Amino acid sequence: MKTYRLALIGFGNVGQGFAQILQERGNWLLELFGVNFEIVAVCTRSRGSLYDPGGLEINALLDSMQSHNSLSGIRALHNDWDALQIAGDSNADVLVEISYTDLETGEPATQTIRRALETGKHVVTANKGPTALHYPELLRIARENGVEIGVEGTVMSGTPALNLGLGSLAGAGVRKIQGILNGTTNYILTQMESGASYADALAQAQEKGYAEADPTADVEAYDAAAKVVILANTLMNLPLTMADINRTGISELTSDDIEQARGAGERWKLIGMVEKQTTSGYVAQVKPTRLPVMHPLASVSGATNAITYTTEVLGDVTLIGPGAGRQETGYGLLADLLAIHRNSG
Amino acid sequence: MKTYRLALIGFGNVGQGFAQILQERGNWLLELFGVNFEIVAVCTRSRGSLYDPGGLEINALLDSMQSHNSLSGIRALHNDWDALQIAGDSNADVLVEISYTDLETGEPATQTIRRALETGKHVVTANKGPTALHYPELLRIARENGVEIGVEGTVMSGTPALNLGLGSLAGAGVRKIQGILNGTTNYILTQMESGASYADALAQAQEKGYAEADPTADVEAYDAAAKVVILANTLMNLPLTMADINRTGISELTSDDIEQARGAGERWKLIGMVEKQTTSGYVAQVKPTRLPVMHPLASVSGATNAITYTTEVLGDVTLIGPGAGRQETGYGLLADLLAIHRNSG
Repeated sequence: MKTYRLALIGFGNVGQGFAQILQERGNWLLELFGVNFEIVAVCTRSRGSLYDPGGLEINALLDSMQSHNSLSGIRALHNDWDALQIAGDSNADVLVEISYTDLETGEPATQTIRRALETGKHVVTANKGPTALHYPELLRIARENGVEIGVEGTVMSGTPALNLGLGSLAGAGVRKIQGILNGTTNYILTQMESGASYADALAQAQEKGYAEADPTADVEAYDAAAKVVILANTLMNLPLTMADINRTGISELTSDDIEQARGAGERWKLIGMVEKQTTSGYVAQVKPTRLPVMHPLASVSGATNAITYTTEVLGDVTLIGPGAGRQETGYGLLADLLAIHRNSG
Repeated sequence: MKTYRLALIGFGNVGQGFAQILQERGNWLLELFGVNFEIVAVCTRSRGSLYDPGGLEINALLDSMQSHNSLSGIRALHNDWDALQIAGDSNADVLVEISYTDLETGEPATQTIRRALETGKHVVTANKGPTALHYPELLRIARENGVEIGVEGTVMSGTPALNLGLGSLAGAGVRKIQGILNGTTNYILTQMESGASYADALAQAQEKGYAEADPTADVEAYDAAAKVVILANTLMNLPLTMADINRTGISELTSDDIEQARGAGERWKLIGMVEKQTTSGYVAQVKPTRLPVMHPLASVSGATNAITYTTEVLGDVTLIGPGAGRQETGYGLLADLLAIHRNSG
């Protein structure tokens, strides 16, 4: 049996979903993989910070958040360490970075991750900010320090879009990736096909909690563009940045557009794509695209996501799965932890 | 750089497709994974047997098969070793078993694989016979001898259906697997939807080389049943055998059945399925099934295959990809070899 001590930076939906998986499946994970996960630190912006090198009770963490949305009242050796101090000086083996996403600066998550890697800690994260903006640098720091960085949760939540490309498909020569990478816009497009206007569909998405009050990141495709950058960086060794993505959102799509596509046996999908050119260079974009109804991505509806890898040896391989959700994204973190455990064996 | 010496038992379509990948992508594999594959033996039933501990030229093997469908004329230290002797006494690190499939006895492949494992060689195979009939025993022998057995190519050719379940999805708790596991029958059903009768569709499949002259293994669902057994054995730790699969083929389906489904917004698919019951036990079957057109498996057409894993943590995850083909199945062998290389690191 091997125990990994975890420090969680952030404890919102994803953090609690992840903790819940550990709580519910801890014995099963121990039995199946010989691995044990212990949370030694949880650091939030405004709900308290706990660090106890001897470990924290997962039940108590979840109960406290559920009962009064705060970590105050839980006893720990330290309750005044900030994220950087935990990243650098705690006894954690792995930093789990799940604080808020900033797609412009990647901070404060990036500096926390950097500190953890530099002090010999593995990092797993579902945070698209540091991953889309700084992955090549963070991977280099990880390698220099003999540790790993896992980012599975940043694309398609826990659906193993990255590990499939990094693992089983790596020898097949991935030359193009395209997919439905944003659940909110896919939900809106699905609602529009059922007759809703763009404005009504957006309102429904906001009501369901799929879209933020300010929906810009989703509907103007910044979120999908960040995922294209991550896919290009991790799976195709292309050092693209956000500025390299030709980006068009769905806010200009009208009910007429939807109807016209239907008449032609097609469906609108917001498709993110990156393709290596045969000579050199690449094409990278996110834009609303009409697909024939029989296309494998056309029947992917609602908040589900999907990705098609076009490979030199195998042709097209498509993966379809959840694109969001607290446990689903939490599973992305667990899958990365299990991969670290496998690689250490 | 690490070199793996390979002994190929069988050198038909899949073997030649595999050799072609090594020939075309050898330098790329060396650069990307630091791995080198060398063929030291090729043993066929009626086209010759070659074993040279110093290695054989891949070009010469492929040219010889292409020009006169035989390995005679290629110089090697030994040309009289049989499969068992190569499995036991050659200097190969990995036995690549790709001889013909016998779903009733699994022989002679099973004894060859057993001998290789017992003498400390890894095994990779695309042969459903030994895998569907003897996987639990072969896995045990592999573990006792500190080597690995990879069977990716037995299900969905090189589409990583097994490695996805064994790797990234293992921590999610797979409790049900269902899929379109046979390309021939899926092609026939697709043709029937375009208006062909069952007899005509079968004749087309035979003409295209998808179906054998005796199509029983495909149309009566023995092939799909074998794949259900393999999925249950490898991914769900259920020790099912062929006799445990409730099996119905497609030969009784009529054009009327196809039309009735279409009228109800549904499509017929031959679905293989295994599901753990909540209390204990399992359900395992292959049978023609009507799916709503929006079901992720419904739009999988022609010779393409697909599999849906229902997991406790992630819900449904679906993988779609090629179900057959010489390079595609050859890639299943390569993916297993790369996994062995990764695990040895």
